Amino acid sequence: MRIWTFDTTLRDGTQGEAVSFSVDDKFLIAQKLDELGIDYIEGGWPMSNPKDKEFFERARGYKFKHAKLTAFGATRFARNPVEQDANTLALLDAGTPVCSIFGKTWDLHVTRVLGVSLDENLTLISDTCRFLKQHGREVVYDAEHFFDGYVSNPDYALRTLEAAKQAGADVLCLCDTNGGTLTARLQEIVADVRKRFDGVIGIHCHNDCDLAVANTIAAVEQGATHVQGCMNGYGERCGNANLASVIALLEAKLGHTTVGSDKLVHLTSVCHYIAELANVPLEPNKPFVGRSAFAHKGGMHVNAVLKDSITYEHIKPSMVGNRQRVLLSDLSGRGNVVYKLEQHGLGDRLTDEAKRELLDRIKTMEYLGYELEAAEGTFELLVREALQPGAKFFEVVSFEVGTRMIGNRESQTTATVILRVNEAIHSATATGEGPMNALDLCLRQCLSPVYPVISNVRLTDYKVRVVDTKKGTAAKVRVLIEWSDHRRSWATVGVSDNVIEASWNALLDAIRLELMRLADKDESIEKAVEDYCWGV
Amino acid sequence: MRIWTFDTTLRDGTQGEAVSFSVDDKFLIAQKLDELGIDYIEGGWPMSNPKDKEFFERARGYKFKHAKLTAFGATRFARNPVEQDANTLALLDAGTPVCSIFGKTWDLHVTRVLGVSLDENLTLISDTCRFLKQHGREVVYDAEHFFDGYVSNPDYALRTLEAAKQAGADVLCLCDTNGGTLTARLQEIVADVRKRFDGVIGIHCHNDCDLAVANTIAAVEQGATHVQGCMNGYGERCGNANLASVIALLEAKLGHTTVGSDKLVHLTSVCHYIAELANVPLEPNKPFVGRSAFAHKGGMHVNAVLKDSITYEHIKPSMVGNRQRVLLSDLSGRGNVVYKLEQHGLGDRLTDEAKRELLDRIKTMEYLGYELEAAEGTFELLVREALQPGAKFFEVVSFEVGTRMIGNRESQTTATVILRVNEAIHSATATGEGPMNALDLCLRQCLSPVYPVISNVRLTDYKVRVVDTKKGTAAKVRVLIEWSDHRRSWATVGVSDNVIEASWNALLDAIRLELMRLADKDESIEKAVEDYCWGV
Repeated sequence: MRIWTFDTTLRDGTQGEAVSFSVDDKFLIAQKLDELGIDYIEGGWPMSNPKDKEFFERARGYKFKHAKLTAFGATRFARNPVEQDANTLALLDAGTPVCSIFGKTWDLHVTRVLGVSLDENLTLISDTCRFLKQHGREVVYDAEHFFDGYVSNPDYALRTLEAAKQAGADVLCLCDTNGGTLTARLQEIVADVRKRFDGVIGIHCHNDCDLAVANTIAAVEQGATHVQGCMNGYGERCGNANLASVIALLEAKLGHTTVGSDKLVHLTSVCHYIAELANVPLEPNKPFVGRSAFAHKGGMHVNAVLKDSITYEHIKPSMVGNRQRVLLSDLSGRGNVVYKLEQHGLGDRLTDEAKRELLDRIKTMEYLGYELEAAEGTFELLVREALQPGAKFFEVVSFEVGTRMIGNRESQTTATVILRVNEAIHSATATGEGPMNALDLCLRQCLSPVYPVISNVRLTDYKVRVVDTKKGTAAKVRVLIEWSDHRRSWATVGVSDNVIEASWNALLDAIRLELMRLADKDESIEKAVEDYCWGV
Repeated sequence: MRIWTFDTTLRDGTQGEAVSFSVDDKFLIAQKLDELGIDYIEGGWPMSNPKDKEFFERARGYKFKHAKLTAFGATRFARNPVEQDANTLALLDAGTPVCSIFGKTWDLHVTRVLGVSLDENLTLISDTCRFLKQHGREVVYDAEHFFDGYVSNPDYALRTLEAAKQAGADVLCLCDTNGGTLTARLQEIVADVRKRFDGVIGIHCHNDCDLAVANTIAAVEQGATHVQGCMNGYGERCGNANLASVIALLEAKLGHTTVGSDKLVHLTSVCHYIAELANVPLEPNKPFVGRSAFAHKGGMHVNAVLKDSITYEHIKPSMVGNRQRVLLSDLSGRGNVVYKLEQHGLGDRLTDEAKRELLDRIKTMEYLGYELEAAEGTFELLVREALQPGAKFFEVVSFEVGTRMIGNRESQTTATVILRVNEAIHSATATGEGPMNALDLCLRQCLSPVYPVISNVRLTDYKVRVVDTKKGTAAKVRVLIEWSDHRRSWATVGVSDNVIEASWNALLDAIRLELMRLADKDESIEKAVEDYCWGV
């Protein structure tokens, strides 16, 4: 069955504590959602937020391929006639083909929060829906707190829907605004609404009970055909229903049609893209799209998966654009490492002794606090060093970096690096924005005359975490850096008592890896490595 | 109804990509789970992992108040008689009152992975259960892949349960090992099993479809009375059912008894404690226990919540030991900030002008990339500076910090700090493990003769993130530091192009805050601040 998808990442999603998008971000995300084949993109609440107003102004000139842009607002204020209500007029001004408006269902909210009579609230709903329909808009009516309202006063809750329906609303969307409704109860209530109303019934769930996705699916099973949610489950408090999971379940497990299977393969990359713009790392264990969603750690599971992936994978990861990964860890048998090497097509090129030595180095690094699972670049470098034992591109003679600040003036950071490259000494001094930048500039000054290719390597993310917090400011830190050379991305890791040394090591690893890759262009490695470093 | 809780954080949880516990960690977590009132604590798989074996050895001398420690293993190997099977003997050696053993349900797994006949598998199951019962153990039989097995061959799946039951298994636990079963289907299958078997039926779900909690609750509704899961939803791939959510739902929403309402109030702190030991930050939007689970950002929601918290909260946060928070952000009206001040009991002590100035400072800092929502310490300092405008404890004249490394020798970091304290110049030079440590040592050398109290302030976590990744190694970074003075914990934040400067600012803020607190001991502030800085 065709189920309509309504994404509210740009509106409800921005209510999440950690999430904040610039107007540029919002525009980029809307384009991505359009490419994914989302039906409705709720862009914001023009009345409540100048940023959202600006977004709609910018979007006016843009033609979406498939999606209908939607502006969000409330039913009119009680004291305003609808044609003079600033909120309603702002909705029209947004110039979108669709408006979604929320109205009160719950008698408690009508009287305590809105402060109007129950009958007056019905007029607010019907006035606003009718006015927007008269101006040619498709209207999605969001029945706020529908389930709590139904439990408190079922007749009144149904009358609010009736008011919207009579006034021409195209979709009656039932919202579990507080996220407190359990699945069995929600199912009964949706079934009752389905029985009483024809047309499109929508569902909008929040995750306060860890049930938002299950509730959305349960509503579809009772006849809802319009699903609202946020990509990655962003949203106020515990978030909205994760629309990515809902789409994957409807398409891949229940045989419904949303974006279509040809677009479903973009799901993983869209989720990671949005997480990047939100500047919130995507939880690795996110269903369907997380980096760990099809990752196998236990030695026994790995063995079974290598025999037949159906043994521990409920769908083919490629359906949603994700992939299988096999992890290195103290739980895994040696089989995992061998699998990694074979995945690289490098198994045959290593002697048994080189394999053993590699394994010892991995163990030692893990003991020191390196997390190789998160740093495939550093792991690839280990493999390549085992494969090309003679390859030495440069040696570090010394480095030095200092930061000085006088009074309230801006601080200054200067570094000096001395390297030995092909028996010649190269040195450089540079001032940078922070120690990493100063060291990086020196390194590139020394190396780029000899290896111009390193100018392609660019930092894309930098994270520091304390490994052992018991020692206060002297604690050991782990630095994880993500890099890109425009073709692919990878991460390197450094561990030290000293954040500068840890960062320096991760920086050196990234540069060395790029040089190693150039020195051995065996196509099978190139392919295996690209395959391996699946950029997210 | 009494529902039994079975926690597998220490076994299945450690299969999660990012999670790794030391033996010490495992022991601390087991004690915490015991205090929370968990019925069964699965400690590990003694046969597969030396760390788990060591854990059981250490636990042997320890008396849990309530929980029964459980050792995990597989049915015996096909080639071994059960009394000589190393896996089964390792289970006995663990010396726990309970053993959980998993056996194969799915015909595909029996023949393709285990490589034995369907009948032989039944013998493996009954032999192992019977042997452990003969040795006085309570036996939880985990029917691996039960739901996939039932779909593939229902008669055979039921026969495997029959084999365990006949051999004396105390619990028949149905596992959705691949996490691919949808709620409606799972419900039907549990109902069928419930009809055929008396005694305790258990449920063990994985979250690959974002449905693990819903499926667990659905199974309970069909008569399961034993629920398995991991705290915080750790576990392989997308994790296990989040036992914290399951417990909260059963207790607070469905009226069942698990740990009891008097212990339920520890749920939030237990989840945060385990996340700390796992060294994985707890997602703020985790249902029930996350820092944002009862956080309100939108100005309109905040206004309604202040009128009546039921309007946007589905339970009282205190039931699970969590609390309401009101966030500062560009979405919020001025009401949020006023609420914060009133929460501190400081509203009356600020003039309107001081409030406006404070608001301007907050806006400017947010524009610069500060995230005050995550750094309540820095926010408190802003408030206190508005409250105590004359308070100046010291001034920074200059600081300087340098790191030098020669060849492969360890790096050395030395800092010099010059401060003006009460018109006198204090200076110090120190060598530390990394620039933060060296600067911290200098600061304390300069200040502790004058303000001995600062020796209590200790760093507990240190995180760095790039704010704007477009500029490579010159990108702006945000440093978030968590501090503790043994009584409470708080976070401060610094933003700069230079990681050293950002860290320095966060360090100064922490020290200044401690001094500010001492200078104004008004008890109502003290109380509001403690209440405000809810340590996690």
